[in-house]
Amino acid sequence: MARIAPEARVIDLTHGIPSFDVRLGAITLQRALPYAPPGVHLAVVDPEVGGRRRPIAIRVAEDDRVLVGPDNGLLWLAAQRFGGIVQAADLTSSPYRLEPVSATFHGRDIFAPIAARLAAGLDLDDVGAPLDPEIVAPMPMPMAEFDGDDLIAHALAFDRFGNVLLDLEHEELTAGVGLRLGEAVEINGVRGVYATTFADVAPGAVLLYEDANRAMAIAVNRASAREALELVPDARVRIRRA
Amino acid sequence: MARIAPEARVIDLTHGIPSFDVRLGAITLQRALPYAPPGVHLAVVDPEVGGRRRPIAIRVAEDDRVLVGPDNGLLWLAAQRFGGIVQAADLTSSPYRLEPVSATFHGRDIFAPIAARLAAGLDLDDVGAPLDPEIVAPMPMPMAEFDGDDLIAHALAFDRFGNVLLDLEHEELTAGVGLRLGEAVEINGVRGVYATTFADVAPGAVLLYEDANRAMAIAVNRASAREALELVPDARVRIRRA
Amino acid sequence: MARIAPEARVIDLTHGIPSFDVRLGAITLQRALPYAPPGVHLAVVDPEVGGRRRPIAIRVAEDDRVLVGPDNGLLWLAAQRFGGIVQAADLTSSPYRLEPVSATFHGRDIFAPIAARLAAGLDLDDVGAPLDPEIVAPMPMPMAEFDGDDLIAHALAFDRFGNVLLDLEHEELTAGVGLRLGEAVEINGVRGVYATTFADVAPGAVLLYEDANRAMAIAVNRASAREALELVPDARVRIRRA
Repeated sequence: MARIAPEARVIDLTHGIPSFDVRLGAITLQRALPYAPPGVHLAVVDPEVGGRRRPIAIRVAEDDRVLVGPDNGLLWLAAQRFGGIVQAADLTSSPYRLEPVSATFHGRDIFAPIAARLAAGLDLDDVGAPLDPEIVAPMPMPMAEFDGDDLIAHALAFDRFGNVLLDLEHEELTAGVGLRLGEAVEINGVRGVYATTFADVAPGAVLLYEDANRAMAIAVNRASAREALELVPDARVRIRRA
Repeated sequence: MARIAPEARVIDLTHGIPSFDVRLGAITLQRALPYAPPGVHLAVVDPEVGGRRRPIAIRVAEDDRVLVGPDNGLLWLAAQRFGGIVQAADLTSSPYRLEPVSATFHGRDIFAPIAARLAAGLDLDDVGAPLDPEIVAPMPMPMAEFDGDDLIAHALAFDRFGNVLLDLEHEELTAGVGLRLGEAVEINGVRGVYATTFADVAPGAVLLYEDANRAMAIAVNRASAREALELVPDARVRIRRA
Repeated sequence: MARIAPEARVIDLTHGIPSFDVRLGAITLQRALPYAPPGVHLAVVDPEVGGRRRPIAIRVAEDDRVLVGPDNGLLWLAAQRFGGIVQAADLTSSPYRLEPVSATFHGRDIFAPIAARLAAGLDLDDVGAPLDPEIVAPMPMPMAEFDGDDLIAHALAFDRFGNVLLDLEHEELTAGVGLRLGEAVEINGVRGVYATTFADVAPGAVLLYEDANRAMAIAVNRASAREALELVPDARVRIRRA
């Protein structure tokens, strides 16, 4: 990128997405981009690059942002956040790939050089073949629902501390379960507190809290909620007042 | 920061401070800043941000440096290194916070945007309420002392290799214990060598050495001294000639 | 570097080389540099810096690149990739070291300030004493060979996924063993497939593949080949058609 677009400023958003966790990558991208300057955003998660997904570039409706990466849902949530996809390109046979294209390192051989070309001023039409935005792969997500008075959410993703991100907005929780800050809550049968922050509960205690992106999450102060509650991806999380 | 102060050069000093280890963060900042160009220095350690500490910005006496971070001692040692605090601001109600301010991600919502405003030319008075420098929280540190002919130091911090940083300067050791390079030493009953560098001892051997910042440290060549000596933070470390 | 050469663009290639793994560092540097703009390239691997190796700077035949680091083989493979060493300097007594030079942090006290001086326009003659390029330390490497119809390769290095890099080019394998894509292969007695990419085999299956740098490597889809095959560095890897 420094060779192709030497004037472009390169900002690393994160190198912390665990391998294979495309969904956490998609959620992280969706949450980070509103804080990043408009531009060309490249995303890739190891090692799905070797999979069957085509490399794509997409332009979103708002902010004149372009996203570059694999067509496996990784870019999808961020695209929705900016009004959806208005233009798409299939980079499979792009003239701006580095030859020979390796089977396993598309970040280096396809995504980085093409993102740099786009940052240097080329259009999607210049770097790939037109692609129907309708066929870009979505990122399937679970959906929280009620079971009587209980709320059934799901474990969307885990961060490196073992905090558990839920498919649940703050408003859904307070409106649906009627829970108030400081009240006790039962999460998959384990007693916890609906709190503002880690410091509100003792070390080792479970808390349900609104995370930094207005979604609900579960944590254990100074420990891993993922392990404490034995949660796997997409696990059901039953929430009720205690 | 790229949006608010696009001309500012952003340098990442480290992303390697373990969560909760405010003291290691404070020591690392103190040691790194003399090598960094003067400017605005932002520091934060996970996840104390959710704690009760107010967000602050402080100006130090030398070099016209400004430090931004939580008022939990993290900035304290670096401030002392540059002559102490001459001006302080409480950022709790700063007009330059990103709204809504999350409870858990002050790095994004308070520290980064305000550090960028300061880098772009604003003064401490512009970004927060005046704060008495006297009430900024210090970082409490243990102090090495003699017990007869033995020196009692403490395990200040550990790095990712398991090397153990002591509260002991090179001069204190050589003057107090009379130890010379190459001599045998007993550390909590374990025999080691007072050496210049890892390569001076066999793999697996314990060494006492002057680290890259003129403080004394304990290591095991190619292994973890923290584990070998079963040390916890602030543990007493008895040092005597062997 | 920001103080000494403020106009220089600093690009971090990787912070992911495991401590002591000088060979993986050398291979990584050799593979990455052809994709990096010409310039001054600094490399260091923990914690060999405390060893007996002299600090050096070398100029290579092609591209006007300069490499700075320890004389322990780390720079060797990259230098060969660019036509070999045409000029070398011993930095042991360089006037541009930061005084006092620590025993354990040559990256900060020798390599970084001198690399910055070179980036700012100084010549090798300015920053150190002339050194005979012939005595710069090479990086010893094993060599694949035939044992009857079997090919005996070696485990050169491991990446963080446990993928195993071999001392074997794609052409040697196909010409020597006559293996074709999709065929079964036996690797140290374990059955696998000669495949293009991870996605070609089931999770848990062993594959032999051409990596992103045209060398052969062994992997287990979504697991560690290093652990599955119980390989140590330089271990012999017997490859035959199955």
